[in-house]
Amino acid sequence: MMQREGALALAAGKGTRMKSDAPKVLATLLGKPMLWYVARALSALFGDEVRAVVGHRAEAVEAAFPELAGRFVLQAEQLGTGHALACALPTLTAAGLTHVLVVNGDAPLVTDASLGAFLDAARNADADLAFVTISLPDPGSYGRVVRTGQGVAIVEAKDFDPAVHGQATGEINAGVYRLRLETIAPLLDRLSNANKSGEYYITDLVALAQEACLSVLPVSRGGDEAYLGINCPRELVAAEEILRRRIVDVHLDAGVLIRAGQSVRIGPEVVIGPGADLCGPLEIYGRTTIGPGTTVASHCRIEDAAIAPGATIHSYCHIAQARVASGCLVGPYARLRPGAVMEEGSHAGNFVEMKKATLGPGAKANHLTYLGDAEIGAGTNVGAGTITCNYDGVNKHKTVIGQKAFIGSNTALVAPVTIGDGALVGAGSVITSDVPDGALALGRARQVTKPRK
Amino acid sequence: MMQREGALALAAGKGTRMKSDAPKVLATLLGKPMLWYVARALSALFGDEVRAVVGHRAEAVEAAFPELAGRFVLQAEQLGTGHALACALPTLTAAGLTHVLVVNGDAPLVTDASLGAFLDAARNADADLAFVTISLPDPGSYGRVVRTGQGVAIVEAKDFDPAVHGQATGEINAGVYRLRLETIAPLLDRLSNANKSGEYYITDLVALAQEACLSVLPVSRGGDEAYLGINCPRELVAAEEILRRRIVDVHLDAGVLIRAGQSVRIGPEVVIGPGADLCGPLEIYGRTTIGPGTTVASHCRIEDAAIAPGATIHSYCHIAQARVASGCLVGPYARLRPGAVMEEGSHAGNFVEMKKATLGPGAKANHLTYLGDAEIGAGTNVGAGTITCNYDGVNKHKTVIGQKAFIGSNTALVAPVTIGDGALVGAGSVITSDVPDGALALGRARQVTKPRK
Amino acid sequence: MMQREGALALAAGKGTRMKSDAPKVLATLLGKPMLWYVARALSALFGDEVRAVVGHRAEAVEAAFPELAGRFVLQAEQLGTGHALACALPTLTAAGLTHVLVVNGDAPLVTDASLGAFLDAARNADADLAFVTISLPDPGSYGRVVRTGQGVAIVEAKDFDPAVHGQATGEINAGVYRLRLETIAPLLDRLSNANKSGEYYITDLVALAQEACLSVLPVSRGGDEAYLGINCPRELVAAEEILRRRIVDVHLDAGVLIRAGQSVRIGPEVVIGPGADLCGPLEIYGRTTIGPGTTVASHCRIEDAAIAPGATIHSYCHIAQARVASGCLVGPYARLRPGAVMEEGSHAGNFVEMKKATLGPGAKANHLTYLGDAEIGAGTNVGAGTITCNYDGVNKHKTVIGQKAFIGSNTALVAPVTIGDGALVGAGSVITSDVPDGALALGRARQVTKPRK
Repeated sequence: MMQREGALALAAGKGTRMKSDAPKVLATLLGKPMLWYVARALSALFGDEVRAVVGHRAEAVEAAFPELAGRFVLQAEQLGTGHALACALPTLTAAGLTHVLVVNGDAPLVTDASLGAFLDAARNADADLAFVTISLPDPGSYGRVVRTGQGVAIVEAKDFDPAVHGQATGEINAGVYRLRLETIAPLLDRLSNANKSGEYYITDLVALAQEACLSVLPVSRGGDEAYLGINCPRELVAAEEILRRRIVDVHLDAGVLIRAGQSVRIGPEVVIGPGADLCGPLEIYGRTTIGPGTTVASHCRIEDAAIAPGATIHSYCHIAQARVASGCLVGPYARLRPGAVMEEGSHAGNFVEMKKATLGPGAKANHLTYLGDAEIGAGTNVGAGTITCNYDGVNKHKTVIGQKAFIGSNTALVAPVTIGDGALVGAGSVITSDVPDGALALGRARQVTKPRK
Repeated sequence: MMQREGALALAAGKGTRMKSDAPKVLATLLGKPMLWYVARALSALFGDEVRAVVGHRAEAVEAAFPELAGRFVLQAEQLGTGHALACALPTLTAAGLTHVLVVNGDAPLVTDASLGAFLDAARNADADLAFVTISLPDPGSYGRVVRTGQGVAIVEAKDFDPAVHGQATGEINAGVYRLRLETIAPLLDRLSNANKSGEYYITDLVALAQEACLSVLPVSRGGDEAYLGINCPRELVAAEEILRRRIVDVHLDAGVLIRAGQSVRIGPEVVIGPGADLCGPLEIYGRTTIGPGTTVASHCRIEDAAIAPGATIHSYCHIAQARVASGCLVGPYARLRPGAVMEEGSHAGNFVEMKKATLGPGAKANHLTYLGDAEIGAGTNVGAGTITCNYDGVNKHKTVIGQKAFIGSNTALVAPVTIGDGALVGAGSVITSDVPDGALALGRARQVTKPRK
Repeated sequence: MMQREGALALAAGKGTRMKSDAPKVLATLLGKPMLWYVARALSALFGDEVRAVVGHRAEAVEAAFPELAGRFVLQAEQLGTGHALACALPTLTAAGLTHVLVVNGDAPLVTDASLGAFLDAARNADADLAFVTISLPDPGSYGRVVRTGQGVAIVEAKDFDPAVHGQATGEINAGVYRLRLETIAPLLDRLSNANKSGEYYITDLVALAQEACLSVLPVSRGGDEAYLGINCPRELVAAEEILRRRIVDVHLDAGVLIRAGQSVRIGPEVVIGPGADLCGPLEIYGRTTIGPGTTVASHCRIEDAAIAPGATIHSYCHIAQARVASGCLVGPYARLRPGAVMEEGSHAGNFVEMKKATLGPGAKANHLTYLGDAEIGAGTNVGAGTITCNYDGVNKHKTVIGQKAFIGSNTALVAPVTIGDGALVGAGSVITSDVPDGALALGRARQVTKPRK
């Protein structure tokens, strides 16, 4: 029979030990939820045949993964992993699957390479039930894998007895299974919740399958850290550190200069060109792209931004959903908020904030300035302390400044307002009316000087 | 006879190798002076029966520890640890103590647990003199503990000879003693300063006590790092790193999410709720409290502040002696100075400084603003570039703004001044007179526009 | 014959694997180019008798090292190390050298101490050709040094065969040679480029010299990391980390308190006084001097600045080519650009930028201020939000403020302008004309208040 395989991620749990109201699988590592990493590995192997069982705050999990829309299965009550699988069974069967890979959604270190090796072993053996085992120096409370002449057993840590089970090997059940649905599905009804937690466990299928004379295959992945699950903040930060190093290593290998690399946090979707020169501490998250030869100094935080080749980002910049072109100088202490666009060779200097604002080619706003809902033309100079007054308490309005204009320092531009090409606004002005091309505008009081009392 | 125990911290030294004018015991680790850690451990064991010998810049040390007021003993000349103890003896006796625990004030890693274990051993043995030994891989210049059939000797490093003293064990004298005053005090007069430093050493009591047929008990604490003393900057930063890890570990265990934990510095008195999400590099000092579920982004420095549950602190915030309520958004780049109060759901954004200023519930000051000596009512919007002119060169004055007011951008509010509820101040204004409830105030020149020359 | 020795650094390569257009030897570690470290070590040993072979973008390399002017040799085509040496030969001979030390310019960890030890061995043996070997745990693709009864051979990694060459020792050729020119120079013509790269290699001189019955001496430097070369970004950051630790260690040993030292980056020319109290993350580069007892808080970046004893630099300061006197308070978030001078006891606070500007003794500019091309007299107070309008779109002009003046907040000072001693400028003013000593100047509109529509 033709095999048709799919994957199921278990993502219904609350994660009480995370001490957070958020569903556990939404806890982030380097800016991405745990489940994102799991889904990425599964999608690489199974394409669209990836489903997730959700339960605790299911709507929040579903909303976080629009790419999995229509492929969620609800486990309304969280009665254990075996129950989760049972909930998904009709969907899996309806999809015509012959086999399913079941993976925990809280194991973000998992990789398609490691899962692929497991799957190959399981397929070659044509096992009814295959599962991953790993060996830990300190297996703690995990279920021990005991291999005997007769088969394999998973023994709870508290029940493990060397006299009965032989010398401890540190081999534990990683909680990842490949199941032949035709033979294993019928066993689900026989799972019992007569245990301390009152839950139905997939683990118990290992014994049931052997009782039913099905083939069961434990596949050892040795010390592979891919299967470490996350149950508490300490485990999350440990896993995040492993991911962090992996990603920094990949960029170093690709020719990115990452100085003080132990303090550099780069998200898994970030793209960085070779020859870029970065220095930690530094955070780069989301779908950020950084071009070849770009310099990013220490103490920046960049998220979902496009930084072109040859731009220079000085220290202490906070950049999100912004675009920076070649030759731009940014910061130090520049804040580029969503919709900030710096065109070629433009400058945004210290204590400058941009939001839904464009600095045209070669335009400069170098000091203590707020540009919100603004368009600044090419070559224009925006003086220190300039504020676009874009909000009237109800609505936001736009400021448009032409090319080669000069906005004197400490000026308030009361939007909506347009300043023409080549116009000059005197320092300290409040500009409430449009200024034509080439015009001079002043909006300030005459100075009065007299002896001090 | 009833035992009555107390503790004596030796805190009189200058600490020449620290290269600082400040008394050594005032050098800080994670924001607290060395002696604070020692006093904390001693107070946990002895309550108020903790005294400190001070000498070098005694007044500075006393001023730093008001909680020890009245329990300082002056050693006017610093003639060694034995002399320090002699100086304290009348006070100890007058307090009716039978035993005293003598600890160096420059050993901030000491814990009540470790001292308690030593004290238990000493009490059980009912020793006249008990002292702590530790074993170091490289005992360096420390006095070696040599145990023989006859007793125990402390041999100076330079005098140590395996042929005479036996194989080196790395066991050294940690400088912590429990003394029975009745029997040991009489020996103090017999201490000699006929040594290279010309000082009187407590160490010599070990030999004198044995000569006097008193019971002497060396209590090995193995490799316990609790007794590492600090004599130079390198030792200080090494000890600080040990403390830092201890504290981060405690918070991780309590369910705080501490990302990039190796770059997170948290003071010993900081309280953090479970589920808070912190990211290094980060410094949190003093009596700061951070509520459950609060987010603190990287690159912040927080001291003596109260951050309520569910507040969000963005990167680069510098917060001291301020209060931030639930639902507040702070920063990035916000500076909250002493007396800054952000009430529920208020916002202080980038390049905003607050000092003795309150933002009422839901009030916002999002950009390039200075709020000093100010009260801002609920729901009021403070525009970008607003400055409260609180200082006239001599005195500070107050700015009061009502609820649901709107302060246009780039406005100077010349205090003392009151802006009423629902008032509107035009952008770019200089406001020198009170503005009634619901009024509109403008203080800006009319714009003049003409062709540029 | 009198020996006359000189050194030759090979600095002609492009460094393709660095993924940068810049010449490899200009890639920086802690702010200094690789070649700077090599030249420093060589100059310590040979004074002015240090030359460098340049090729790829030779003009850029020469421009970066004015101190080596006149001592560059051009290798117009980069045909290998042997060819580079041949290019330099006429110059070396003309200088009357008997021996030359040849060192790679991409080995910035090299020290004069390590080279000196090698040179001593080479001189003592009076070898015609001496070269450094080091032992690596994983010798990778480096040429293996094989010592036999007959002499020494350098065997390419791919040709190495334990059956022929004996047990692998991990000993490799470090690429550092001391050559007697009289005997070795004649061999240069016999180098061949019949190899995979089509280049002439100095390495081949080892065999040629032995064929010519000259004395060849391999000098083992064990695991000395001084000879690690840099070929890619990963190797650069690894070397930078070694240098970083070395430098931090030196300062710790000298009595500087460096907290969170693993995140502190200090350039090799920085001078720091004992007792200074620094906290990482922190960067200090260039020819910066920091006085004894000065405090530098976390998250600062300081370059080519002079910070006097007892100054306090708060967090997030960005300081370059500036001078800060004793007792000054700087930041947090202060930006001192080139030409910023803070005289004794002056303050520059948050979101304050200074460029070519002097704050006189005790003067203060504490909030949201831009001081460019300005002189501020002693004791003057510059209010929050003050902007010196120094640029008219074409030229920069100067602002001069006298002593004990008071500049009200949110004031624009339109340069060129002079404010006299003791003058008072009202808040929110635009000042376009000079203000005499002791005068009061206002440049703001009268407030109009009316009911809000």
